[in-house]
Amino acid sequence: MQSNSNLLKNGWKLECLKLNKVKPVPSDIEIVRAHKCKPIAQLANEINLDKYDLYGQYKAKVTMQTPDVSDPSSRGKYVVVTGITPTPLGEGKSTTTIGLAQSIGAIIGKNCFACIRQPSQGPTFGIKGGAAGGGYSQVMPMEDFNLHLTGDIHAITAANNLIAAAIDARAFHETTQSDQALFNRLVPFKHGKREFNKIQKKRLEKLGINPNAKPGDLLPEQVRDFSRLNIDTKAIIWHRVMDINDRFLRKITIGQGSNEKGFSREEQFDISVASELMAVLALANDLRDVRERVGRIVVAQSRHDPPRAITCEDLGVAGAVTVLLKDAVKPTLIQTLEGTPVLVHCGPFANIAHGNSSIIADKIALKLVGTDGYVLTECGFGADVGLEKFINIKCRTSGILPDCVVIVASVRALKMHGGGPTVTPGAPIPKAYQEENLELLKNGLCNLKAHLHNITQHFQLPVVVAINRFTSDTEAELQLVRKEALAAGATDACIADNWAQGGEGAIDLANAVIRTCEKNSMTGRYLYDERLSIKQKIERIACTIYGAESVEYSEVADDKIKRFEAFGYSKLPVCIAKTHLSLSHDPNIKGAPSGFRFPIIDIRVAAGAGFVYPLAGTIQTMPGLPTRPAFYDIDIDPDTEEIEGLF
Amino acid sequence: MQSNSNLLKNGWKLECLKLNKVKPVPSDIEIVRAHKCKPIAQLANEINLDKYDLYGQYKAKVTMQTPDVSDPSSRGKYVVVTGITPTPLGEGKSTTTIGLAQSIGAIIGKNCFACIRQPSQGPTFGIKGGAAGGGYSQVMPMEDFNLHLTGDIHAITAANNLIAAAIDARAFHETTQSDQALFNRLVPFKHGKREFNKIQKKRLEKLGINPNAKPGDLLPEQVRDFSRLNIDTKAIIWHRVMDINDRFLRKITIGQGSNEKGFSREEQFDISVASELMAVLALANDLRDVRERVGRIVVAQSRHDPPRAITCEDLGVAGAVTVLLKDAVKPTLIQTLEGTPVLVHCGPFANIAHGNSSIIADKIALKLVGTDGYVLTECGFGADVGLEKFINIKCRTSGILPDCVVIVASVRALKMHGGGPTVTPGAPIPKAYQEENLELLKNGLCNLKAHLHNITQHFQLPVVVAINRFTSDTEAELQLVRKEALAAGATDACIADNWAQGGEGAIDLANAVIRTCEKNSMTGRYLYDERLSIKQKIERIACTIYGAESVEYSEVADDKIKRFEAFGYSKLPVCIAKTHLSLSHDPNIKGAPSGFRFPIIDIRVAAGAGFVYPLAGTIQTMPGLPTRPAFYDIDIDPDTEEIEGLF
Repeated sequence: MQSNSNLLKNGWKLECLKLNKVKPVPSDIEIVRAHKCKPIAQLANEINLDKYDLYGQYKAKVTMQTPDVSDPSSRGKYVVVTGITPTPLGEGKSTTTIGLAQSIGAIIGKNCFACIRQPSQGPTFGIKGGAAGGGYSQVMPMEDFNLHLTGDIHAITAANNLIAAAIDARAFHETTQSDQALFNRLVPFKHGKREFNKIQKKRLEKLGINPNAKPGDLLPEQVRDFSRLNIDTKAIIWHRVMDINDRFLRKITIGQGSNEKGFSREEQFDISVASELMAVLALANDLRDVRERVGRIVVAQSRHDPPRAITCEDLGVAGAVTVLLKDAVKPTLIQTLEGTPVLVHCGPFANIAHGNSSIIADKIALKLVGTDGYVLTECGFGADVGLEKFINIKCRTSGILPDCVVIVASVRALKMHGGGPTVTPGAPIPKAYQEENLELLKNGLCNLKAHLHNITQHFQLPVVVAINRFTSDTEAELQLVRKEALAAGATDACIADNWAQGGEGAIDLANAVIRTCEKNSMTGRYLYDERLSIKQKIERIACTIYGAESVEYSEVADDKIKRFEAFGYSKLPVCIAKTHLSLSHDPNIKGAPSGFRFPIIDIRVAAGAGFVYPLAGTIQTMPGLPTRPAFYDIDIDPDTEEIEGLF
Repeated sequence: MQSNSNLLKNGWKLECLKLNKVKPVPSDIEIVRAHKCKPIAQLANEINLDKYDLYGQYKAKVTMQTPDVSDPSSRGKYVVVTGITPTPLGEGKSTTTIGLAQSIGAIIGKNCFACIRQPSQGPTFGIKGGAAGGGYSQVMPMEDFNLHLTGDIHAITAANNLIAAAIDARAFHETTQSDQALFNRLVPFKHGKREFNKIQKKRLEKLGINPNAKPGDLLPEQVRDFSRLNIDTKAIIWHRVMDINDRFLRKITIGQGSNEKGFSREEQFDISVASELMAVLALANDLRDVRERVGRIVVAQSRHDPPRAITCEDLGVAGAVTVLLKDAVKPTLIQTLEGTPVLVHCGPFANIAHGNSSIIADKIALKLVGTDGYVLTECGFGADVGLEKFINIKCRTSGILPDCVVIVASVRALKMHGGGPTVTPGAPIPKAYQEENLELLKNGLCNLKAHLHNITQHFQLPVVVAINRFTSDTEAELQLVRKEALAAGATDACIADNWAQGGEGAIDLANAVIRTCEKNSMTGRYLYDERLSIKQKIERIACTIYGAESVEYSEVADDKIKRFEAFGYSKLPVCIAKTHLSLSHDPNIKGAPSGFRFPIIDIRVAAGAGFVYPLAGTIQTMPGLPTRPAFYDIDIDPDTEEIEGLF
């Protein structure tokens, strides 16, 4: 292992790691095994990070407070990486993000952080495909990254399920006890005295009862109101979660034990990353913000007329949930193959949630890189979904808009949009994608152009196209994409060969991104004013970004929108849950469709995360295991502790 | 914080931490807050431990290989801490273990490790009561100890549930596909070639098919036999788990989604520490042993006639499960209030499993303390359950018998055995326990004597009685217990006041333990030969240790015992699941009952952990939340990150 030390601006002194490149490019795990991490304490020292907790030798949790980087002169350049509408195989957004970070950080020698999402463990053992990048653009330690990492998702699972247990237990105890018995248990005598605790005083206040009242002073109606949340068990919207692909938990009946008889109800498990707590962590600015958002989470409706929203604060569980999340609120520092720093933090769903890594990690990185540095942050799905939510939800919450957008395109995906045959995971790639076909490619460029139009016109941001080179791409194909991208308004368009070459392969792209950030005169804007009505916001997104002609609402959605406005949720941004495989709601419609009616079949609220999420179709929140799951090839050598078969 | 450094034998140079004692003794969390941990890297250095991974500043995972300590001259003295039959409130076994460690390690100045179990998070948020000791005998950091610690239980949860998802998914895919389709998916073509992987070759071998056969060479029956596990979904014995008190998951129906229709079945969630994987980790000698035990776990029976046992190895999931447990196999190093070292590792149930912390932790500690040092290990429940299983299951597996037993007794519990009123958690303590009552106490001493008889006669081990002093105990009461204990064969009997005084309060006890270990001539023995039949083993335990006259078996148990013997499980030790609140099977029978018929209503196997477990009654494996759960008082200060209300 050789290394070259560069003295960088802003005090970083990064020891970059040299790649041991081999041709043809070996498997991801073979590459990772051929490269050794530097101790994470060394990396922290190199980038002047002194507040961290080690988790083993190669991972650290960053313990510094979230810095205020609202003033652009206090932070580095903020670059967001998105993609065109992908095939189901993905087009290499993570690989481009990591490769670009290696290029800016290790090759060009500017301070650079990549901020990425933590992957769910479900797919790791289900359908093969890591989230650590690929080829010579990967993060290390790759195994830990794809497994427990520093336990954040497990903490979310535990906290989520504590809330779920609290809901059912509370409903159960309320049904089986009188008002007074309930009150006596909630406010017990201790050594002959009884008093309300902190959480209970908050509840008194919410109910309009003097929080300094003595327990004995409450009137019978107040005792009842205090003691009974009156949960409507048919209107519980909080579900249990598990970070496993377990299709048999998609729809279940709970509470069938002999002691709970009569209280059984229908329930479902979602995969853990679909928990609202994941979105809460990703959108919070600090621990205090987490505590407040957790308290606001709506878990159910009451049986009152009109129904009341029941929150985690009402259940008295918000403090304990925040305690469970106290370490998960801290991003994890790891490194790229070339030794540049990476922050991993949160991984909310990109449909029912906003699909972006955390605000806390981005802010810490923006401070640490200094004013000459760069922070790359990746958003989920294509630009119609992930980037739209990045701008309108994440940036709105953080107060920081990006300096530049990078959009990843692949010849493969563009050919698919041009009418190429169906691409299916697991099946062989059709021939059209393996040989030159300029006709298909030309037809499919409409998808890239639609995204470029959205970014430059609607978000008013400069955009660089990264053409992720696949081994079967021809020079003529790559140049055609480049030419058309420039003609469609991209600031630049570069072929990125970092999968095969690491940071060196993305040097053109890196220079283009740096140039764009330096001379950028576009400051970006939100797509909509949050004070618009829920429907106006949905229509603005669907009709400008997706290309729809109109939006149609189911009766359920219509009713719920009215109810949400009455509950005061109308000022929240909207987070549309739709497929990422089309600009429209229908995964089979490729290219750049227009003139379609966009359907909203249902709408839900994430009051803690701070958005409403309309559903444009059925969204699967619990994946399943295939006949031959990825775990089939995974094993460990008991002597070396080396993991086998993980990608 | 003052400290005094002692240069100890065997190279330890421990900086002991001074207690800041206050009277009356404050709450556990107040005490912990008034004491600061030393950095765990410092403690590791002091005890010559150089192989570890930090998890933050105050926790470390020990990464050294399990040492061979089979030769007594290669290790320290091994002391096991158990208890008399307790009240439901517990009699301070953990507090005594920690206080004794503080006394031997910090006051007397000998090398001393305490090895304890990791508590489940369920009770932390359910019914108050930490497992970190109490008063001035506690481990730090107490919050982390009671929460995620280093993620071991979360890893077990994830691994357990991966197995569960694998079972149902496999059964589902088998039912919906032909033999050949199944085979083609299990052994897919890649670049025109197909081959069996490592896991599949093991399966071929098991089925008596040449493991070097080519996939195309298999005969149709072999294709069927290879591809179909033929899981009898009515005979699945593996359950999902969650580390939360969630009573609504005690009995559920899964698989009711529209895509799984027709495959729904009854299921239950147990609390995570009840997972067989917890027992596997606790009884394994190293990672290789974990891998092999996981492979042997029986999860279901097949539909074949006669049925076959389906294992994790058959499912192809054993490697992935071991990968998930690769960090959990390593014990966690923390410290006591007085700065002495503690290893925390595993916490299997004490009824359906064996209730002891891990063999790996004990062996590492026995090596690290050196030949002049002491290792204290605690077992769950009373001596009839936890100690019996310690000797006959844990020690048999590790090959190391203890040098001395410490049995913890309290005046409170003895009075209960003498006919005192019922003690109920949450309710005020009856008066009889708060004032001198020598009569009740004298009547109740039979329970202590029965345990002493078992230890000295049946296990042939020397035993020291630790009388855990409560504030309301009188001198006459304490002396009576002491006198009677000595008369009943205890090597010594000492009043332990370490809850109020820390290590100084257990100095008599510490000296008695040291003396006993030094002059011990009893070497201990197992209660039974493992080659006895299952019934003979059950009867040996019930009729000698519990005092039963005979054992009666239900028809179900009778049938299953026959089946288990046919499956080859008859040589496994037995792990009887019974109440800890009585020497008998009935929690209401106090004292030292005899002449009763001991009922076995069912029997199960933990083939990976390596025992069969007969059930002497219904065992609750999923607790519930009370009306006012402990989480009600738990919150976090967002500025200081200080946790409030945790005990």
